[in-house]
Amino acid sequence: MSVSAVPQYFKGFAVSSSENWNKPKLVEYERKQIQPHDVVIKNVACGLCGSDLHTLREQWMPMQRKELVVGHEIVGHVMAVGDKVTQFKVGQRVGVGAASASCKDCVRCKNNNEHYCKKQVLTYNSHDEKTGYVTQGGYSSHSIADEDFVFPIPDKMDFTVAGPLMCAGLTVFSPLIRNLGEDATGKTVGIIGIGGLGHLAIQFANALGAKVVTFSRSSSKKEQALSMGADSFVATGEEEGWNTKYEDSFDLMLNCASGVDGLNLSDYLDVLKVDANFVSVGLPPAKDSFQLSPISFLGNGGSFGSSFLGSKKEAMKMLEIAAEKGVKPWIEEIDISEENCHEALTRCHNGDVRYRFVFTGFDKAFGN
Amino acid sequence: MSVSAVPQYFKGFAVSSSENWNKPKLVEYERKQIQPHDVVIKNVACGLCGSDLHTLREQWMPMQRKELVVGHEIVGHVMAVGDKVTQFKVGQRVGVGAASASCKDCVRCKNNNEHYCKKQVLTYNSHDEKTGYVTQGGYSSHSIADEDFVFPIPDKMDFTVAGPLMCAGLTVFSPLIRNLGEDATGKTVGIIGIGGLGHLAIQFANALGAKVVTFSRSSSKKEQALSMGADSFVATGEEEGWNTKYEDSFDLMLNCASGVDGLNLSDYLDVLKVDANFVSVGLPPAKDSFQLSPISFLGNGGSFGSSFLGSKKEAMKMLEIAAEKGVKPWIEEIDISEENCHEALTRCHNGDVRYRFVFTGFDKAFGN
Ligand SMILES: NC(=O)c1ccc[n+]([C@@H]2O[C@H](COP(=O)([O-])OP(=O)(O)OC[C@H]3O[C@@H](n4cnc5c(N)ncnc54)[C@H](OP(=O)(O)O)[C@@H]3O)[C@@H](O)[C@H]2O)c1
Ligand SMILES: NC(=O)c1ccc[n+]([C@@H]2O[C@H](COP(=O)([O-])OP(=O)(O)OC[C@H]3O[C@@H](n4cnc5c(N)ncnc54)[C@H](OP(=O)(O)O)[C@@H]3O)[C@@H](O)[C@H]2O)c1
Ligand SMILES: [Zn+2]
Ligand SMILES: [Zn+2]
Ligand SMILES: [Zn+2]
Ligand SMILES: [Zn+2]
Repeated sequence: MSVSAVPQYFKGFAVSSSENWNKPKLVEYERKQIQPHDVVIKNVACGLCGSDLHTLREQWMPMQRKELVVGHEIVGHVMAVGDKVTQFKVGQRVGVGAASASCKDCVRCKNNNEHYCKKQVLTYNSHDEKTGYVTQGGYSSHSIADEDFVFPIPDKMDFTVAGPLMCAGLTVFSPLIRNLGEDATGKTVGIIGIGGLGHLAIQFANALGAKVVTFSRSSSKKEQALSMGADSFVATGEEEGWNTKYEDSFDLMLNCASGVDGLNLSDYLDVLKVDANFVSVGLPPAKDSFQLSPISFLGNGGSFGSSFLGSKKEAMKMLEIAAEKGVKPWIEEIDISEENCHEALTRCHNGDVRYRFVFTGFDKAFGN
Repeated sequence: MSVSAVPQYFKGFAVSSSENWNKPKLVEYERKQIQPHDVVIKNVACGLCGSDLHTLREQWMPMQRKELVVGHEIVGHVMAVGDKVTQFKVGQRVGVGAASASCKDCVRCKNNNEHYCKKQVLTYNSHDEKTGYVTQGGYSSHSIADEDFVFPIPDKMDFTVAGPLMCAGLTVFSPLIRNLGEDATGKTVGIIGIGGLGHLAIQFANALGAKVVTFSRSSSKKEQALSMGADSFVATGEEEGWNTKYEDSFDLMLNCASGVDGLNLSDYLDVLKVDANFVSVGLPPAKDSFQLSPISFLGNGGSFGSSFLGSKKEAMKMLEIAAEKGVKPWIEEIDISEENCHEALTRCHNGDVRYRFVFTGFDKAFGN
């Protein structure tokens, strides 16, 4: 299909106010103007990321448009491509994560850090300066993204498996390889919070050769975490003084928790090896900050920071490793509909999913 | 001299309560028991470190003994050595920094991170588990330290120049090379707070080849900072919005300030390059912490941490580079005495020294 034949209106499940965060309604909305480097995707499936919940509940910032569609673990077929697109052809199986455009021109864009571009546009709830549009996510019929933010899906990988890799997979993979390198043999990683991100972090850390210690608030996920490749499991809410057992143990502590309940930061900082990082990919509500002083790190010269998504280069590597080593999200498929959006958002909020919802049935919901 | 001939009592200038932080009195105190790996030093000079002030004012923790002698930029001659000492001979010119013993046996001790040993003993105000002693610093006639914490002073280096390198020099050198490598050409470092540590950080960063941007609360130190090798200077208290000029600029931000006045952390975090660190060697009073959230770092995946002293291996390298490249503390010599301890502590507290006091005249003060 040529770009000019792409329908002017897309359909999606949108929320209009944070009180109704778990009650998306089917709406039509005008799409973004297609840019020369844009790829238009007919969506086939979309994962439900913890960030969708934070956004709809306005835990980071207000919603930027009246009817907001979230979703940024998008997979589908290329339907049309802008004039200047060189990396994709119509019909290809592709995915998009949480970012979908950048300036293409700055030092970061030119050095495999395009996801940190200062002009980067997120997949939803984000002002695209160039077009004045506020972006819409993938609980929808179609998506539009710059080709540098579109990832080809390996031939043998199911769409539903690929979905959660687009955001959750890439987000945990990037800090793992940036901190440990691609061969993490002999290194030990702590993974805090076993949800959509955490359960993939366990698998990727294991695939890279690291020893993995998992931290969860209760012991309910213990057997499953071990079966994913964790070497040991700590139920932080049930084990007092676990940290004394792990002195000087961690080359990286990767926090994947979406909140701070029971997260006693100093316990984790104390067990880092010399110069090791506590990296939070989990992004608790803005109000839940930590009190830190330089003195907090004196025992090992460690640090506290975060990591945001990953580059396209890392996404390609991540997909390759996932395909090769059998890293796979554990998913619950659910047909996309008003009722099921409600159910999935509510259950994810309640921690009632092992470990990722993926919306499917897009043709039925949106027609063709 | 044999170890058994070392006098049982040493002399030093001690403080008995934080109200009298700037009024040290000359006292005699029983020395630590000499261990097989210990080196006994007859002190010749000692720098006044910002940590002496924090300790005497009890801004980190209470004083651990009734009459506390501080000082940990100690230089002098080896006077006696324990049975098992292999690295030093009587008469040698040596120095000791802020740590003076460790377990010698753990992973950290065996891998050039002995300054992060969990059983490490600091040079003053620190419980030495092995002997039950609370350590005394270098505003004193003699010092005792494990040979792994004693550094030989290069032949052509004056004692008074070597003094401040023992703590201030090593403390800034270690994070510079750990974050940038030994060749920092093409890298940019920010140095915050131009005092004893900061003015050496400027010189070492410059010696390693980095571009150096200095941050000071006022412009009063501008000319001097530039003459030390800084490429530019920002008076944070006088320039609104300086950070917009430095977007995406810093490979390392090294905080050397002893307090948090005017230190707007987010300004500094915002100008880091991707994955770069804000490392605080400055250790503000424990009560002055920062409010941080993972969201604070999303713009670049950076981190916030600290660094403690440096290893003996790094100390040797630091002394070599200082000798080779002419890195030199700017010092004001002052004869050690009750009156001058008072003056130097008070003036350092008031920021009235360019840039380090070094106590001398030890023979006169303590007799031989
Ligand atoms: N940095 C990035 O680029 C990036 C990208 C994607 C997502 N994220 C963020 O990553 C976080 C996790 O996302 P997700 O999709 O994995 O969410 P999720 O599937 O809901 O999992 C979150 C996990 O965090 C723990 N948790 C939940 N509520 C908590 C609370 N109140 N206090 C402490 N821990 C709690 C639970 O683990 P246990 O039951 O095991 O304790 C839960 O399984 C979210 O904050 C999300 O916004 C960040
Ligand atoms: N991590 C370690 O291993 C280690 C080792 C040694 C020392 N330290 C710590 O490093 C810090 C600096 O020591 P130093 O010997 O360099 O001290 P210093 O000579 O007194 O210099 C401290 C500098 O910090 C700035 N400053 C002073 N008071 C301040 C305040 N209230 N708020 C903000 N900035 C302030 C000033 O710089 P401007 O006038 O330029 O703003 C001053 O020159 C101390 O906290 C010390 O304890 C740490
Ligand atoms: Zn996400
Ligand atoms: Zn860019
Ligand atoms: Zn010091
Ligand atoms: Zn040790």
